[in-house]
Parts: sequence; C-alpha cells; structure tokens
Amino acid sequence: MIIAIDAMGGDLAPTSNVKGAIEAAREMPDVRIVLVGDEARLAPMLAQAPKNIEIRHAAETIEADEEPVKAVRRKRDSSLVLGVTMVKNKEADVIISAGNTGAFMTAALLITGRIKGIDRPALSPIVPTTDAAGVMILDAGANMDAQPKHLLQYAIMGSIYAEKVMGVARPRVGLLNVGTEEKKGNDLTKEAHSLLKESSLNFIGNVEARDIMEHVCDIVVCDGFSGNILLKTMEGMAKTMMSVMKEEFTRTITSQLAAMMLRPGLRRVKNQMDYAEYGGALLMGVQGTCIKAHGSSNARAIHAAIRQAKKFVEHDVNSLIAREIQGESRDEYV
Amino acid sequence: MIIAIDAMGGDLAPTSNVKGAIEAAREMPDVRIVLVGDEARLAPMLAQAPKNIEIRHAAETIEADEEPVKAVRRKRDSSLVLGVTMVKNKEADVIISAGNTGAFMTAALLITGRIKGIDRPALSPIVPTTDAAGVMILDAGANMDAQPKHLLQYAIMGSIYAEKVMGVARPRVGLLNVGTEEKKGNDLTKEAHSLLKESSLNFIGNVEARDIMEHVCDIVVCDGFSGNILLKTMEGMAKTMMSVMKEEFTRTITSQLAAMMLRPGLRRVKNQMDYAEYGGALLMGVQGTCIKAHGSSNARAIHAAIRQAKKFVEHDVNSLIAREIQGESRDEYV
Repeated sequence: MIIAIDAMGGDLAPTSNVKGAIEAAREMPDVRIVLVGDEARLAPMLAQAPKNIEIRHAAETIEADEEPVKAVRRKRDSSLVLGVTMVKNKEADVIISAGNTGAFMTAALLITGRIKGIDRPALSPIVPTTDAAGVMILDAGANMDAQPKHLLQYAIMGSIYAEKVMGVARPRVGLLNVGTEEKKGNDLTKEAHSLLKESSLNFIGNVEARDIMEHVCDIVVCDGFSGNILLKTMEGMAKTMMSVMKEEFTRTITSQLAAMMLRPGLRRVKNQMDYAEYGGALLMGVQGTCIKAHGSSNARAIHAAIRQAKKFVEHDVNSLIAREIQGESRDEYV
Repeated sequence: MIIAIDAMGGDLAPTSNVKGAIEAAREMPDVRIVLVGDEARLAPMLAQAPKNIEIRHAAETIEADEEPVKAVRRKRDSSLVLGVTMVKNKEADVIISAGNTGAFMTAALLITGRIKGIDRPALSPIVPTTDAAGVMILDAGANMDAQPKHLLQYAIMGSIYAEKVMGVARPRVGLLNVGTEEKKGNDLTKEAHSLLKESSLNFIGNVEARDIMEHVCDIVVCDGFSGNILLKTMEGMAKTMMSVMKEEFTRTITSQLAAMMLRPGLRRVKNQMDYAEYGGALLMGVQGTCIKAHGSSNARAIHAAIRQAKKFVEHDVNSLIAREIQGESRDEYV
C-alpha cells in the first residue's frame, strides 16, 4: 500500500507532516509513504527516516488563502495537485493533505472524479465524543445547498465507513435537526427524514447538536452548511473553554499549583476533545481516497490520519460504496 | 411597569421562577411583578415576598413536551397563554416564560401578532463571549426556512436591541457563514450578504461559528435552523466539557484537592459560560414583549431575564423597530 502525503500543506508544514509520516512509517513497515513536496526542504529532514518513506518532488505549494479553483488549475506542480494526481494514476492508494480544504476538495473532484451514482461528495470528519468513540459527520462543508437524496447517500456512505473502518455493527444514523420529533426542522430535513425512514439503514431519527458528543448515534447526516456550523462551533467552544480555563489556572500561585496537580487529568481532557486523535476528514464519494487532515495538524494528527487511511484502503471502502450505490444491493437501502 | 412571569413554565418551576421574581422585586421596587400560575401552589411561597409582587391565577399548565399549536389552542387558561394575553391586553408590559418554547412562540405570534412590516419574528438569545459582553443570535429557531430579506430584518431588529439594551454604539452585524470570504456559503447567505452590504447597517461581513465567542461582532444573523444548531452545539459542548472536567477532578484524592483549590476559578468559568447570566431569548418582531428564558432556568436566570425585560420596555425597543421597519427611516437601511 502506498500512502501519499501533501508534505507542504497545513499550518505546521512541512515539519509536522514529515514527523508524523516517519512515526507512521516505523509503525507500519508494510506501508510505503511518499512525501510530496519540495525535495530540497524535505530531504534533510529524512536523514534518520526508515526505508519505507520517500520523496516525490513538487515545485509549487498552494497556500491556505488561495482561491481553490484557480489554485488547482494554475498550480499543477503543487504538492496538493500532484498528490491527488498520484491517486488518480494509481501511483498511490490514498492522499492525505492538511492544506487548503477548498483546493483539496476541488482537486479530488476534478482529478479523480465522483464515484458513479454519487451526486455529491461529502466532507466527513469524525468529531469527539465523551466515550472517545467519535461520530462521523456527513457533510461538514462540501455541498452547501443539499437535497434530501444527497443526505440519503451520505447515510449510505457513512454507514459503510462506520461498519468497516470504525468496526460498528449496524451503525446508527442520525439526522441533524432542531428537535427529536419527526416533524421538526426545515423543508430539507423533513423530506430527508422520510427518505431515511424508508431506507433499510439503521436510522434512529432526528438528533440534536447537543447530544452528538454523547454518542447518541454513529453517523450524523446534514447539509454542508449546517454541518460546517456544527463542526466549527464544537471546535471554537472547546478552544474557548480551554483558554478560559488556562487563564484561571494561571491567575494565582494556588491555582498554578492546583493546575500542576491536575496536569494528567487536563491532558486527558484535552486529548479527548482533540480532533487529531480521531483522524482526518474523509472526502466520501470521490473515486480516489482523499483524507483532509486538520489545518493545524501536528505530527500526531498526521500519524492518526495515516492509520485511518490504511484501514480505509484495506477495507476497500470506496468499492463497497460504489457497489451499494450502483449495484443490485441498492434495493437494500433505497 | 408590569412584568408578568409564567410561574409554571420551566424544568425548575415554580420554585426558581418565584425565587427569581422575589429577588428582582426587591431589587426593582418601581416594577410590579405578576406571577401567573396556580394560586394554591404559589401563595404559600410568597409569605416573605415584597409588596410589588402578586399572583394571577391560571388553572392550567402547558408541559414541555406538548405539541405547541394544539397546546396553545386548547389550554386557554394556562399560565403561558394567560401571560401572553395579559401583554396583548396591556395588563402587562412583558411576559417571561421558561416553558415550552414552541408554545410560547406560537402564543406570542397568534395572540399579540407581528410588528407591522416584520415578515418573520426571530428567537434571539444572547450567547456567552470570552469578554462576557455576549452576542445576540437572530434567529435561533423561530423560522426554519428563512429568506434573505428576513435576515436583513433580523439585522435591523438586532441592531436596535444592541444599541438600546446592550448599550453598543453602531453594533457590528455578522452573517453566520462557513468562511469569511464574501462568496462563501449557500444560496441564502450569498443573497443575504448582498442585501446587508447595501444596507446602512454596520455590516462587517461573514463570521465563522468558532469566532463568535471571541466577540468579533455584536449581532449574528442566520436562518433559524443554523442558529439553532449553533446555539445547541455551544450549549452541548460547554456542558460536555464541564462534565468531562468534573470526572477528572474527582478521579483521585490529589485531583479532588486541586479542584478544591481551583473552586473560585472554576466557578468564574462556569458563570462566564452560563446563559443565565446573559438574560433570556427575546422574541424579536412580535408586538408584545416576550422573553423566553432557558428551560432549565434557575432563580438567577429568571432574575437576569427580568432585568433585561425592564431595559427592553424602558427603551421601547418594539416601537423603535416598528418605526425603522415602516417609517421614513426605512430608507436608511434598505
């Protein structure tokens, strides 16, 4: 298996990408890892690296603030575009990028294309839960104006992922809504509710945003706008609370001492609420396997994404999705 | 000024409502507070109450899980419906309820009606910020499928509230979106962005959910579905983090000791993240002044909502809204 990494993407690139890749290469000697990026910068960092890690030179880098479509069209030699192209050309089984999300989604869609039968791909991150199992959100921002049938497709894709990669039997699908009652919500959720109810998926009905962290379901489906709001509110709130806490913990000598005593516990809380622990966001529904790591990914996050990528490829999730959406077994769901 | 309270509404009713009302009545001797509810239950609780607090008997109670429209139509003698009716009949200047949100919105709309020129009322809570100033969200769940012009009206209403009640000069209006760039979002936000940009409001552009707690703007406008997701995610995340922390703090004797040392700081964090401190959610755009307190409101939350109600009435916010929406000064905004 070959896992390509956009070495130049992300706030902490290339250092964290290289470090995470080296850790993963040591852990998984049967995997080949290809760092796509500026060879002159990357080569010196690989002095101590194991043999199953190599460099593929890319002359350009797409920056975080570049306009996605333009960037992908113009920077054909960028690490991001080259990495996705490698997947398209079967030179790699998967590409992981912590770079420009829009550019990555654009490249995935333009270069590798959609899985036949999937109308819209979904950006599918896994968000933290109090039991540390994680819940997949589809869609967290790929498709802003979704239709009910898109949400059904998200549910099918998410169910396959949760079953194969997360190891959940009959994953529970929840529809993000403003209340649990069947009639709640907007036009989209009301129609999607009917579609999901008629399917053979393990649909548990509407779920409220505040219950997701309690792991009331394994997969949450929603339009990309709402999913993005959900994701960023969770992220912002966790960050805000951590920083407010930190302020209190450093206020007096007593509180500093107390914080020191609590350090192991605080670290556990931080890890539990840390996206990095749960891997990256899959671009579910595109032909090539593309994983979007968080923009501020550290080595640990990249390492987790590589682990996730390996499972995804091993279980051949994309083929299963294609088969479910197109094949005889379609009747099973729709 | 007469402030009516739905004494029977909310998870902690009637105790917390009565306690909060008594506290407020002591603090504001110029205000008359009317507790609407079951006299037999309420009277014994008012033994020590100041003279500016009284009871208006209501024979029925609308429960939290009742279907809103049915409940309002059938339970005409309920504390919730009677309270709203008092506002309609000018027997009270404002009604505060911690009860069934849907029923309260329905009653407000059916009984007092909309302000002329307002197409859709907005449920408008104030969410916590790290600087404790708070940000008003319009709409957090009254109108699920909003149109761009509704968002403009929310912005006008919110600006008046922030200026008059929160004391903010030229309140900054943000449009909830998935990115700060102008072209981001769904069909609704793209059109709303143009409308807001053309208005004379202090529109600062798109805001991301994760930045709201940092007080990047004073008012956030959005459709009721997204606003509800935002609100409940903030609430859920704060609650989850507090409970995860609590677990760590009680894990060992050392952590228990440390948590004791940190108690004042932890209480400050809890208060800062506590909705109760910021008052209730206004139903902006309805004729009568209606404030929805959080379902789990304690005495402190009810007290805060009464304080907020007083300011709202003193500044005659509803008349200002009506004048802005209908009057000559409409040109100023649209």
